[in-house]
Amino acid sequence: MALIATIETGLYRIPLGITLSDSTHGEMTAFELITCRVRDADGAEGIGYTYTVGRNGGAVADVLKREIPDLVAGREADDTEAIWHRVWWGLHYGGRGGPVVLALSALDIALWDLKAQRAELPLFRLLGGFDARVPCYAGGIDLDLSVDALLQQTDDNLAKGFRAIKMKVGRPDLGADVARVRAMRKHLGDGFPLMADANMKWTVEEAIRAARALQPFDLTWLEEPTIPDDVAGHARILSAGGVPIAAGENLRSLWDFKAYIAAGAVSYPEPDVTNCGGVTSFMKIARLAEAFNLPVTSHGAHDITVHMLAACPNRSFLEAHGFGLDNYIEHPLVLEDGLALAATRPGHGINFDWEGLAGLTA
Amino acid sequence: MALIATIETGLYRIPLGITLSDSTHGEMTAFELITCRVRDADGAEGIGYTYTVGRNGGAVADVLKREIPDLVAGREADDTEAIWHRVWWGLHYGGRGGPVVLALSALDIALWDLKAQRAELPLFRLLGGFDARVPCYAGGIDLDLSVDALLQQTDDNLAKGFRAIKMKVGRPDLGADVARVRAMRKHLGDGFPLMADANMKWTVEEAIRAARALQPFDLTWLEEPTIPDDVAGHARILSAGGVPIAAGENLRSLWDFKAYIAAGAVSYPEPDVTNCGGVTSFMKIARLAEAFNLPVTSHGAHDITVHMLAACPNRSFLEAHGFGLDNYIEHPLVLEDGLALAATRPGHGINFDWEGLAGLTA
Ligand SMILES: [Mg+2]
Ligand SMILES: [Mg+2]
Repeated sequence: MALIATIETGLYRIPLGITLSDSTHGEMTAFELITCRVRDADGAEGIGYTYTVGRNGGAVADVLKREIPDLVAGREADDTEAIWHRVWWGLHYGGRGGPVVLALSALDIALWDLKAQRAELPLFRLLGGFDARVPCYAGGIDLDLSVDALLQQTDDNLAKGFRAIKMKVGRPDLGADVARVRAMRKHLGDGFPLMADANMKWTVEEAIRAARALQPFDLTWLEEPTIPDDVAGHARILSAGGVPIAAGENLRSLWDFKAYIAAGAVSYPEPDVTNCGGVTSFMKIARLAEAFNLPVTSHGAHDITVHMLAACPNRSFLEAHGFGLDNYIEHPLVLEDGLALAATRPGHGINFDWEGLAGLTA
Repeated sequence: MALIATIETGLYRIPLGITLSDSTHGEMTAFELITCRVRDADGAEGIGYTYTVGRNGGAVADVLKREIPDLVAGREADDTEAIWHRVWWGLHYGGRGGPVVLALSALDIALWDLKAQRAELPLFRLLGGFDARVPCYAGGIDLDLSVDALLQQTDDNLAKGFRAIKMKVGRPDLGADVARVRAMRKHLGDGFPLMADANMKWTVEEAIRAARALQPFDLTWLEEPTIPDDVAGHARILSAGGVPIAAGENLRSLWDFKAYIAAGAVSYPEPDVTNCGGVTSFMKIARLAEAFNLPVTSHGAHDITVHMLAACPNRSFLEAHGFGLDNYIEHPLVLEDGLALAATRPGHGINFDWEGLAGLTA
């Protein structure tokens, strides 16, 4: 136990090796990384981060620099639940979502890292310790790739050790989506876990039509078929489309997930620890899913999230993202036989190449 | 018609004449004002604003300065629907709520002001023109006032011409709430419109207990009995408590309101034009309420909002807030026989005392 002494925030633009594209966000050339380093009165440090696909990072950093230190300075760093509520309610007006929750997520991750380090435990053991080996899939952002390039990317992912893969759908013409999924299924063979992500592209009826057209290809799940604001629409797509549905990367709280889960609107809840409210919220969402007999998957930040899923008996696949952050992380995620391994170092075990990042300051 | 040329953003701290308090936000000593001035290629200017109860304003201003100009520069200023969607989706990741929606609201208000000015119409006529005279209530932020001070504030409001009044509830002891509401009802007499606002203080069962205890005092509505994240809880309070329920100042989109309205969880939807997505969203929410045979009320920004309610056949009371902004506005809201009058100047008719504000720059 020790009091929070300082909070240091960084804002960086991480260039993408290649321009990524999906059905909603268009072309993405850089991600924003926002870091949060919490030091306690004993000089111990926890590290958290969040990210965006290119915008709103300035607002996230503003909340971390201008609002949060004042709200949490001098508090007991181990009191993660009290601090979470202090920040959620202290920033509620004009908060309750958006950049405020991303900032809170980064803070909360740093506090859990600090707590686990001080306890000399890897984070997944502090959180519960179920199985350090977590099934993992490669999440491609590949909507605009030709079929040849898509299959080449897939071979690269197989060579890296992935044993499950997600691709994008949501082309203007459903026929193109079907052809691409068919090509992937043929390439990967029957039974290989394959997911497809529509990034909120469709209306409800379009999504049902697409789900039915994709049924022959045995998708593990279809992700974000329509806008995250339509809970009843998701429930209808799930029941009428006949394909399991994943959703959650654009939900921002335990209560958002509760609305989906209680309505039978999602098969695979998919929180992102960097935008759902941090470790504190992620674990509540995962336990809520367990209570509803649902698996939990994840979005983004695989290096941190592997610890959360390694503490969950209902963990499904971890998403491994490729947005180039690995170039600035000391110990990138390790894969073994298609499984991601939660590191056994104390905390989440992630540190940044701060010198390398300094040149990318935004 | 003319293209958007420049967008200018200001961030100010407006000191409150007296420290305000409610059950959730504690003591508030200053509000933040974030302004947005849009100039088109012809040099015409529209003015928008949003505000916070003291935090997150820096993040709102960052979004307006860093993200929005790039997304909308060179677009046709009259295409408010296209611009709204451009900003909503362009800032969706890490947006979809919080400071991003407040920023979008300020922009959207400015664009509607510009559109109405160019059309040489007062905004309420551009939007529909139902009745320029809008019932209005004084919204007190008075939880910590003694009963004597509360009644004195009430007499001041009556002297200003108000013919409807809202008070705060949510004291630690329900008995104190009941005594205060009883004193107000006795002071105001039977039939005088009186509302009470709990600012999300209670659990669902506490709220039902409070609603039942307050039933004898004929409240027009009980506002925000519990957290805005619990739609089903609001529906239960409404049906079991036996008092009409107002909610919405902490909802951030048309879809949030749809969830409440479709679930029968609210009697008086209460959007705030400065945080629900601007004029574009406010009017959709008001029309949605109309379709469900519900009145629509409002939160905050009475100077702008009077135009929206003046365009709605289902308008209920306009909230008149007293956070001190009137000191920096050229033409504050005019009351006549308890009715607020929508100004007949082109646009929303509001301009700021920019020189006075300059000294409050944050
Ligand atoms: Mg996705
Ligand atoms: Mg209120």
